[in-house]
Amino acid sequence: MATPSLLLYADSAVNADQLYLGRAFVPDPFISFTVGRKKYAVVNALEFGRMKRESEFDVVLPLESFIERGRKRFPDRKIAAAEVISLIARDYKIKSFVVPDDFPAGLATRLTNLKVKIEVAEGAIFPQREIKSDAEAEALREGNRCSAAGIGAAERVLRASKIKGGKLIFEGKPLTSERLKLAIEVGCLEAGAVSLDTIAAGGDQACDPHGRGTGPLRANELIIVDVFPRVVKTGYYGDMTRTFLKGRASDAQRKLVAAVREAQLAALKKIKAGVDGHDVHQQVLDTFARHGYETKHTDQGSVGFFHGTGHGLGLAVHEPPRVNATHYRLKRGSVVTVEPGLYYPGLGGCRIEDVVQVTDSTPKLLSKFHYDWELK
Amino acid sequence: MATPSLLLYADSAVNADQLYLGRAFVPDPFISFTVGRKKYAVVNALEFGRMKRESEFDVVLPLESFIERGRKRFPDRKIAAAEVISLIARDYKIKSFVVPDDFPAGLATRLTNLKVKIEVAEGAIFPQREIKSDAEAEALREGNRCSAAGIGAAERVLRASKIKGGKLIFEGKPLTSERLKLAIEVGCLEAGAVSLDTIAAGGDQACDPHGRGTGPLRANELIIVDVFPRVVKTGYYGDMTRTFLKGRASDAQRKLVAAVREAQLAALKKIKAGVDGHDVHQQVLDTFARHGYETKHTDQGSVGFFHGTGHGLGLAVHEPPRVNATHYRLKRGSVVTVEPGLYYPGLGGCRIEDVVQVTDSTPKLLSKFHYDWELK
Repeated sequence: MATPSLLLYADSAVNADQLYLGRAFVPDPFISFTVGRKKYAVVNALEFGRMKRESEFDVVLPLESFIERGRKRFPDRKIAAAEVISLIARDYKIKSFVVPDDFPAGLATRLTNLKVKIEVAEGAIFPQREIKSDAEAEALREGNRCSAAGIGAAERVLRASKIKGGKLIFEGKPLTSERLKLAIEVGCLEAGAVSLDTIAAGGDQACDPHGRGTGPLRANELIIVDVFPRVVKTGYYGDMTRTFLKGRASDAQRKLVAAVREAQLAALKKIKAGVDGHDVHQQVLDTFARHGYETKHTDQGSVGFFHGTGHGLGLAVHEPPRVNATHYRLKRGSVVTVEPGLYYPGLGGCRIEDVVQVTDSTPKLLSKFHYDWELK
Repeated sequence: MATPSLLLYADSAVNADQLYLGRAFVPDPFISFTVGRKKYAVVNALEFGRMKRESEFDVVLPLESFIERGRKRFPDRKIAAAEVISLIARDYKIKSFVVPDDFPAGLATRLTNLKVKIEVAEGAIFPQREIKSDAEAEALREGNRCSAAGIGAAERVLRASKIKGGKLIFEGKPLTSERLKLAIEVGCLEAGAVSLDTIAAGGDQACDPHGRGTGPLRANELIIVDVFPRVVKTGYYGDMTRTFLKGRASDAQRKLVAAVREAQLAALKKIKAGVDGHDVHQQVLDTFARHGYETKHTDQGSVGFFHGTGHGLGLAVHEPPRVNATHYRLKRGSVVTVEPGLYYPGLGGCRIEDVVQVTDSTPKLLSKFHYDWELK
């Protein structure tokens, strides 16, 4: 059977498959396709020169010439992506395209109306994205160096802060989540990455694992710092979390942090090629259960441990494989986060996250930052 | 006819429609839908509490309970978005959903297989996104304040740089595009916005309008600084461009910059509710033609003016309306960029960009930064 022709229509600044195929950032949706092993892109004049020079597409075609031909062939229609793809199918004698699951449904309908056959891929269109080459692992290590730069900046701000009446004072002003995030994001930028949606949340706010944190931070409360920046040059991510506390921790806080770290180490010990991600996740659940940490779901939200243990990391911040309650065998070369957490309003939240590459034995750590968390 | 039920499945951190509906950032795809005027979201435990408190959804439903019910109803299937949506259709007696053009084709196919009817919206699913309320105009003005903070930071670096042997020296080192972008992005962060894909490109590099710029910047060359940051709190964008030159401009460079500014002013004068964007674009083309600036397309790229005059700006950096060669009447309340440019390798590139809201008379300027460009 011949290699099927793939077809994508997406913005490579947000769509990881499109970036994976051509390795060039284009901030608007564009057509790309494959014929055998050759990769093609169709872009407008605004992108053409740069794509020819900088992308990994074998052939870059000018959109304008397709539009012109489209006007002749479809004189009664506005010429857009569907009409251009119909010309491509004819030029390259492509009987049917395979498209990714997130291919736009509207375009799919218009293609069907134009009698261009498409078929949605079963699973990922580039399943090989799950297995990271050495160069990709290095790019992810670089992403985590940027994460560590951000977390290090947060630690320096917390260490430099003074405690006054239970509040943290930095540079003469109450230290807020916003100020801490600014320090983190500047640290990431200086390291070469952009950190979006940075989390620096203290106290009960940290009990919403995706809450970013807002307003003043307080002494003696757990502060979750989760930094997942994207390296500007390559598009690969880092993703690390540390939990800090400025002041003096209570016994309950110490016990919580120790349990999370113990769960992380237990998960790391289990991760190996061929292991079911479900079993890794179960290690975390077992560790928490052993220490008496319960998970409960209420109308107002959940407490305990209520997210996955980890997720794949690459050109997307969340990608296959997931390490959670579902059954899925980890493959050699996969890169995943390992990020157990516990969240109890009143006591606070703790999450510790690192990134590893799966091997046949001990996973290779791609992130590096110390685990000291109680800052006097 | 009853109000159709809308259905979305997207990540609101990148999908502007999903953010528009619920005004809450969720970094993974989730289901949202409407019944009459009521807005619903289905999210997992990780997002549930935060969404209930912070989003504009009228009803936030826990994904886990749908998954549990799905397991009973579809014992032989993996329960994912399609199965959950099928339960929703049954619960709320929805005969057919209207989905946006970029709804995932794979999910659309699975819904059809489950006998859930969907119909792709003709045009935008929220056409009202094109018309900005006063609060939205203010959010966009705030975005441009952040752009201006970034451009101001770039100007300060250029002013502080010394010229040595044709190169720019800043803080004792050759000034690079990367260093200039760092200053811009830190300036944006301090102002409350994240700037991705910042452009700070000099000389021939600036002749690729989407090239970001890399390596040393030189004296006496045009440097395009294009900053389109997203305000962290609201998700609205700014988008401004200025072109600078450190040193002494040639007559040809001065003529080029003057023509671009003249074209921008001509376009701004034309913009009014009811005017065809094509005619605004034509003003720019006419201005450039009058000054003898030709546009040419070659195998290696284009020279002259080869992009649109402007685009809508809102929760996406590129959104309707487009102001270019296509015919489209501008509506009162729309917000568009006005950004003519000229690009000639050898001479360099110049683009000047501001943002306006369309009114019945003179458009309202939502961006503010001076036009001095020759920095001694």
